[in-house]
Amino acid sequence: MIDKKGILFVLSGPSGVGKGTVRKALFEKETDLQYSISITTRKPRNGETHGVDYFFHEKDEVENMIEHGELLEWAEYVGNYYGTPRRYVEQTLAEGKDVFLEIEVQGALQVKENFPEGVFIFLFPPSLDELKNRIVNRGTETEDLVRNRLLAAKEEIEMMEAYDYVVVNDEIDQAVKRIQAIVQSEHCKRERIAEEYKKALESDES
Amino acid sequence: MIDKKGILFVLSGPSGVGKGTVRKALFEKETDLQYSISITTRKPRNGETHGVDYFFHEKDEVENMIEHGELLEWAEYVGNYYGTPRRYVEQTLAEGKDVFLEIEVQGALQVKENFPEGVFIFLFPPSLDELKNRIVNRGTETEDLVRNRLLAAKEEIEMMEAYDYVVVNDEIDQAVKRIQAIVQSEHCKRERIAEEYKKALESDES
Repeated sequence: MIDKKGILFVLSGPSGVGKGTVRKALFEKETDLQYSISITTRKPRNGETHGVDYFFHEKDEVENMIEHGELLEWAEYVGNYYGTPRRYVEQTLAEGKDVFLEIEVQGALQVKENFPEGVFIFLFPPSLDELKNRIVNRGTETEDLVRNRLLAAKEEIEMMEAYDYVVVNDEIDQAVKRIQAIVQSEHCKRERIAEEYKKALESDES
Repeated sequence: MIDKKGILFVLSGPSGVGKGTVRKALFEKETDLQYSISITTRKPRNGETHGVDYFFHEKDEVENMIEHGELLEWAEYVGNYYGTPRRYVEQTLAEGKDVFLEIEVQGALQVKENFPEGVFIFLFPPSLDELKNRIVNRGTETEDLVRNRLLAAKEEIEMMEAYDYVVVNDEIDQAVKRIQAIVQSEHCKRERIAEEYKKALESDES
């Protein structure tokens, strides 16, 4: 039958918009998406498994990966590296599985640069007030921090232009349905499949 | 809130692929799609209403519409004109409703020329054997006619290149779900909505 290659989907959006919540709700449904496994230099915590929760690496290994372009994106956070390994993504896609990555805007833009054939989805706040509420309700922030994060979020919204789709996170269930629709419709894109469909039909004629 | 414009969706595909069946199944579901109403010069049959089943017109009126580019596509069939009125489509889209048109490949290509901002979906047969079966099972065709229609269908498949999406009609329910996903995801396309979303967010700040 028809040879199907997977697609890389990248979900991103401004700080506080609810990316993690939507991603969790999406993976609670029945899905064929494979969640992208990151590399990290931090030590495994109790119960964490290499190749399931993370790929655990030494610092010099990761620096070597960065140097050789083996990460689709990376960042340093509290003294540790985190990143998305190109090889794992490409192998999973080659097996015909879609890969799903949920990530900050800066990371998504790095992925876009290194893997432009991905599908980039921007999660959008229903309103600025709502975004502010969500940032405030994390509870741990001072007023100054909230103001800064809101400013950062507005700048991140400007980066929407680099994305393929915009999904409003008004209701989590609705946002999840829209993402599922995007996944399904991307597999119907003519430029992805027309050639293989034609070939399949021709081989039919024998 | 956000000003939403409708989208024109055009479902087409080779002779015998099952366009009408899929369209009917789609409209049996709950849908916000507005089925495109054609103009015709044939006389209304019992129970047919102007503006519901067709827009009924005189021959000279339709020739005038053709001359003035008021039809997105048209064809002559058994001495009568049939066509898609641009004004009805544009008014419906302006009201924020999606318009759905199911049509032969030649007509779809005319629409594409006159309304390139439409979304063009090609319904694809699961196999050539299956397509042949469907043509034969219409029952009214001689062997020669079946061969000709199959040849025509193969030529129509070559025209797939002009379409945005390809949906395999392996199972009607699956095909319907894929079309529904395309409709939903097209409303999330960044180039359609990013500007209006940004404006809505800015007007928020007042």
